[in-house]
Amino acid sequence: MTGLPAIGDELRELLGEIADLESAAALLGWDERTKMPPAAGAARAEHQATLARVIHDRLASDRLGRLLADARDRLDGERDGEAAGVLAVALREWEKARRVPGELRGELARAQSLSEQAWIEARTASSFEILRPHLDRVVDLKRRYIECFDVEHPYDALLDDFEPEARTADVRAILERLREGTVPLVERIGARPQLAEVCLHGDFPLDAQRQAAGELARMLPLPDGGWRLDESAHPFSESLAPTDIRLTTRYDRAYVGTMVWSVIHEAGHGLYEAGMPRDLARTPAGRPRSLSLHESQSRLWENWVGRRRPFLRPLQRLLAAHLPDRFSSVSVEELYRAANVVRPSLIRVEADEVTYNLHIVIRFELELELFEERLAVAELPEAWRDRYAAYLGLEVPDDAAGVLQDVHWPGGAFGYFPTYSLGNVIAAQLWERAQAEIADLDRHLAAAEFEPLYGWLADNLFRHAGRLPAAATVERALGRGIDPTPLLAQLTAKYGELYGIGG
Amino acid sequence: MTGLPAIGDELRELLGEIADLESAAALLGWDERTKMPPAAGAARAEHQATLARVIHDRLASDRLGRLLADARDRLDGERDGEAAGVLAVALREWEKARRVPGELRGELARAQSLSEQAWIEARTASSFEILRPHLDRVVDLKRRYIECFDVEHPYDALLDDFEPEARTADVRAILERLREGTVPLVERIGARPQLAEVCLHGDFPLDAQRQAAGELARMLPLPDGGWRLDESAHPFSESLAPTDIRLTTRYDRAYVGTMVWSVIHEAGHGLYEAGMPRDLARTPAGRPRSLSLHESQSRLWENWVGRRRPFLRPLQRLLAAHLPDRFSSVSVEELYRAANVVRPSLIRVEADEVTYNLHIVIRFELELELFEERLAVAELPEAWRDRYAAYLGLEVPDDAAGVLQDVHWPGGAFGYFPTYSLGNVIAAQLWERAQAEIADLDRHLAAAEFEPLYGWLADNLFRHAGRLPAAATVERALGRGIDPTPLLAQLTAKYGELYGIGG
Repeated sequence: MTGLPAIGDELRELLGEIADLESAAALLGWDERTKMPPAAGAARAEHQATLARVIHDRLASDRLGRLLADARDRLDGERDGEAAGVLAVALREWEKARRVPGELRGELARAQSLSEQAWIEARTASSFEILRPHLDRVVDLKRRYIECFDVEHPYDALLDDFEPEARTADVRAILERLREGTVPLVERIGARPQLAEVCLHGDFPLDAQRQAAGELARMLPLPDGGWRLDESAHPFSESLAPTDIRLTTRYDRAYVGTMVWSVIHEAGHGLYEAGMPRDLARTPAGRPRSLSLHESQSRLWENWVGRRRPFLRPLQRLLAAHLPDRFSSVSVEELYRAANVVRPSLIRVEADEVTYNLHIVIRFELELELFEERLAVAELPEAWRDRYAAYLGLEVPDDAAGVLQDVHWPGGAFGYFPTYSLGNVIAAQLWERAQAEIADLDRHLAAAEFEPLYGWLADNLFRHAGRLPAAATVERALGRGIDPTPLLAQLTAKYGELYGIGG
Repeated sequence: MTGLPAIGDELRELLGEIADLESAAALLGWDERTKMPPAAGAARAEHQATLARVIHDRLASDRLGRLLADARDRLDGERDGEAAGVLAVALREWEKARRVPGELRGELARAQSLSEQAWIEARTASSFEILRPHLDRVVDLKRRYIECFDVEHPYDALLDDFEPEARTADVRAILERLREGTVPLVERIGARPQLAEVCLHGDFPLDAQRQAAGELARMLPLPDGGWRLDESAHPFSESLAPTDIRLTTRYDRAYVGTMVWSVIHEAGHGLYEAGMPRDLARTPAGRPRSLSLHESQSRLWENWVGRRRPFLRPLQRLLAAHLPDRFSSVSVEELYRAANVVRPSLIRVEADEVTYNLHIVIRFELELELFEERLAVAELPEAWRDRYAAYLGLEVPDDAAGVLQDVHWPGGAFGYFPTYSLGNVIAAQLWERAQAEIADLDRHLAAAEFEPLYGWLADNLFRHAGRLPAAATVERALGRGIDPTPLLAQLTAKYGELYGIGG
């Protein structure tokens, strides 16, 4: 908080307070998913609700509005620089917070919580009907939420909660190109013999996996003494500060790949949070805003670093050290092929790099149809099955393996899914440029030297990421907008070589 | 929050909000001492300070004052019952919060934080001079703090932060009787041959100790799925809700006693929090207020249950199961003697049941002299050495093993120490009554059946503990005030038998 004098002490302090309360809320969430005793759920819901309310009251306060107006006067039309950036982000959040009545926020929170609980039951019973009335209610409330905003397309309002200032039309164009490029690639791969992946399967003792996971995370340039790695049912990461990064992973005794690439993926998120500019800490511009950019980082490390030949060299050594029975005789090339098997599957979170985006396209298309009122909630299971047949050639056996697999919709997170694919798209664009600009990048990765890449990302991406929307950040970093061409080209080249297609 | 209609919805909601924020602050504190990455300290200090300020602003707000006045009118002079109890506690906290200017609170927080940091350095260097100027500042500010209150004795204001509504004169009388009864007992024990304690010393693998610690905690009647056990440098416990109890312990590879009795001690604290009346949850009367009562519970389980013969039977079996090399051949009687060795020592946290209270008496006497302005901060090391020679017959070799051993004074917690001994006093009183009222108590403990004792404590003590001060709670439970006679009698009898004195 030494910089930013232009916005004024009182505003800086209030923004810092909001950031601190958000960190406390983040800890409640992290703890709930990693450490909390199971019987504490009801009490924890109260703690979370209270903290959310306290944060919202500050964010929507007359006082914040007045301080923001004062600061704007003081900046006197200056539009560049950090103070202007912080102010623009804060003003946008304040305006958003003011638009939604507290009563609607409360109803949404309650409906989403009930709907999430019903979803657990529905998924266990594989019965969409158990969820349907709750999801109907959530969608109705989301339509009321949309009405609070003045938007071109109703979905814009939903998207904005995860991808600030993004437009539905732009996202639709990108995802359509992804679909058009991916469906034929998946078909061509499917016509070729499958790659061997046996080396990642076996019986891998959990203690040895835990040791390997710790060493894998320590290899990456996470901040010294500023992170930890825990276990959770669904791997996630959280950050309370750039010096307080929390990664989680999951261990599958029969398949070591779950641990390996979830550690690298979550570390990618953590590296991004740890790299945010310190002088913007405790301001709304000091935290990543765009989920697409966030995902671009996790995917870049997971797939572009973690599933390419150079890094598989140190990874093979690490696995051979901790799981020698299996990996001492596995070659880097064997590991490379096993790490890049493409196979259409029903479950998004288990999907490979190529088919993954089709899972997202399906969800995005259905969300759009829902909020364009071309599809009813009751029609989702059938539309889901049709789309999985058309894009992935798969028959969906039941709702548990279909429309009920993700928590996002029951939890009210409509507008979230496309950020996963936008992340892949941006990662490919960054990778293309990084390869051109960083001398000997592959040699560095083969030597487990990550600073050249991490430093390049910090210089080109992280500096702007808190202040600008994703598209503008990419524009600043690369001199052009978000574009799926590099991703499609890279996937075609990589999997063309692996599966012996075309060339 | 289903009960308590009489205090009104808005007041109930505000008190609930304050309680939830206190739980979030408790999680920040627990995490800091068990899980936080070491580099996150500076960011965490900001989070803690913000949350403390947000809580204080609500606690000292005009709005809370107005709601409390309205509720008092509505209760119309009714003084009994839960609503009146909640109201009385809340009113007292509000009045206290209003009396201390925010600027003094801020200065105290800052001075205490700096002083704690200086203390770490001072203790490492064993040099009181490093701490002295900081401690001078803290004591000066504490004197200003005292001036905010209208008290009989200056120390009353300090005591009140840990032991609400206690009076210095009463505490002094109790601690004087403890000193008079204990000094000669320690001398008589010292003249006798020492008990053998070798069975607790050895080489105890940490994994086996961890297993044993988990099983030991599971033996005790902690709430199903509502607690966890972690490690920390200094064992402590924290509670976010009666269903979210967090115990910590420490493992010493060479001495298993550290683990055993710290687990039981911290579980005692946790059992108390878990047993608070559920209908008062999220009110200021739903949490323990008196530290003496809190300590009475940890000590009751640690010493009266955990160091008496009946429970040592199941404890011996547990230790034999996890550390068979050592404990399969140790008899219950051997374990009993090793668990009850009395030996004057320099360090409070390592002290036995008999000498412990003399460590407290020394600190209490020095605190009193400081705030009665009969002693200067600079004179503390010498006064400390004199007192250890007089009461425990020990020479203090350096400040690290003397006046610098505890964090309390550097942290500004003057008035805290006497609650440890008051806890012992109350535990003995409760024990005397429990033995008279619970049929076959010893037989139950020998069978590791704890419900009769825990239920008795809940019925007699926990029900009132959030609403009433310690003295009034003891009065309700036992029909008489806090009195050191049972403690002195029990110590004399137990150690008389063990050391072959008198009888």
